[in-house]
Amino acid sequence: METKVSTANKEIIIGDGRPTVLIGERINPTGKKKLADALRAGDMEIVKKEALAQVQAGADILDVNVGTSGVDQVSLLPCAVQTVMSAVDVPICIDSDKPEALKEALKVYRGKPIINSVTGQKKSLEVILPLVSEYKAAVIGLCMDDGGIPESADKRVAVARKIVGEAEKLGIPREDIIIDCMVLTLGAEGNAGTVVLEAIRKVKAELGVNMTFGCSNISFGLPDRDILNRAFISMAIAEGVNCPVVDAAKIRETVLAADLILSRDKWASRYIGAYRERQKLHGSKK
Amino acid sequence: METKVSTANKEIIIGDGRPTVLIGERINPTGKKKLADALRAGDMEIVKKEALAQVQAGADILDVNVGTSGVDQVSLLPCAVQTVMSAVDVPICIDSDKPEALKEALKVYRGKPIINSVTGQKKSLEVILPLVSEYKAAVIGLCMDDGGIPESADKRVAVARKIVGEAEKLGIPREDIIIDCMVLTLGAEGNAGTVVLEAIRKVKAELGVNMTFGCSNISFGLPDRDILNRAFISMAIAEGVNCPVVDAAKIRETVLAADLILSRDKWASRYIGAYRERQKLHGSKK
Repeated sequence: METKVSTANKEIIIGDGRPTVLIGERINPTGKKKLADALRAGDMEIVKKEALAQVQAGADILDVNVGTSGVDQVSLLPCAVQTVMSAVDVPICIDSDKPEALKEALKVYRGKPIINSVTGQKKSLEVILPLVSEYKAAVIGLCMDDGGIPESADKRVAVARKIVGEAEKLGIPREDIIIDCMVLTLGAEGNAGTVVLEAIRKVKAELGVNMTFGCSNISFGLPDRDILNRAFISMAIAEGVNCPVVDAAKIRETVLAADLILSRDKWASRYIGAYRERQKLHGSKK
Repeated sequence: METKVSTANKEIIIGDGRPTVLIGERINPTGKKKLADALRAGDMEIVKKEALAQVQAGADILDVNVGTSGVDQVSLLPCAVQTVMSAVDVPICIDSDKPEALKEALKVYRGKPIINSVTGQKKSLEVILPLVSEYKAAVIGLCMDDGGIPESADKRVAVARKIVGEAEKLGIPREDIIIDCMVLTLGAEGNAGTVVLEAIRKVKAELGVNMTFGCSNISFGLPDRDILNRAFISMAIAEGVNCPVVDAAKIRETVLAADLILSRDKWASRYIGAYRERQKLHGSKK
């Protein structure tokens, strides 16, 4: 199953057996005071810098989220989307909890974006899916509903099934739905890893959809987060996640290793290419 | 299913849901000129040093192999086993392609060791399994037979099935058989990763046995081997490998991360303990 997203100029295809597609997570003010302050002041300089840095680090798609206190997302989200479109040529994952802001951003976007996100909540399905249909976008479906994030893998699969079913009723093709099985943190939930890995395996087997997740949530509050994030993303890619939301600069080399191990990198050309780039960078720093 | 191995004083249990058991790989002269020279001279100093260093780095069991040109394994293997037994208190995985050498080493070993290895070859089954039975040892069964290492996962599973079947005929309990699905190198076989991961999954599902593998083979000849080894071991542990043969100093932190993600490290106590040890070590180096 292939999810095709695009800019005005180029297409990115997400699909099993293909190289993992990285959705850059860094344009999001949560926990980033400097970015939050800049957004409040309407200053797009950091957004532009982060867009350039992430694409340089290997991000294939950029998530754009401006949600923080004191920001009017309805006016600022389209502006951030414009900024990113003029800085880099990668598809955008338009990320907001405000449907009105999503709609304004969709109006200015050129190409086929991803909408982040719809949930299994009745209200979300009713408001977001028509937008997905109207703008012929792809959408991330989160495995949570009116009861929150279900504890069990099977209940998360049930939410994914519901989202796919409701979308298909509106004529949204299944390949335009990307499921996120929801990563909780190991620091709070000892079985956060096993539950989400089981859900990923089951959603892939039953629905065959492409899948994302917020990798670094797993390690929140624990030491040496990168070690955990790398082990976790390796397992999750093997189970079926093929467009994770990540900090590309920190995790791309592990993702390329996973792709090579899973026969998605013929002749190891991407893996070795990235190694050579690192060597060059390392050499120029001396 | 639990594989119990021991020294004269303590037991190590390998089993699903338990922390991954690390078999230290470094007492093996293949590709190590200094160790090979020392072994030829009958000098056990490096063996002793490697034993201490690996246990310090977190190895739970030590593989002991003295096979190199110019070495009489029949006399040297028992000597190396004695050396390791007096240096450290961890079970030994007695590793030789010479059944006579295995037998002499088994005679001196105190506790329950692992024999490395039996294959699906007729001759190997006929010679090694009686030793396993006589000394009530555990044994590593390699998924290869008279035709070499099968290309397909299903054929490797068939070899594992055969080894388990032949062992059970001699009264060797299934829990004393540890299967190695055989890691080839990605540099030579583009599907080396996918085939062995599929074999691991299928052997675990069908036979339920504990499983080992030589992790670092996957990256032979490729750059930045540790990145590949870490991604690969994370996937393999998730699929069922629970006593890999590794360089503990290089990979233990990733294995502890994998165990934490897979709910085998309650309260993250092993993961955080290892982090604190690294901090202490780092601090003392300043």
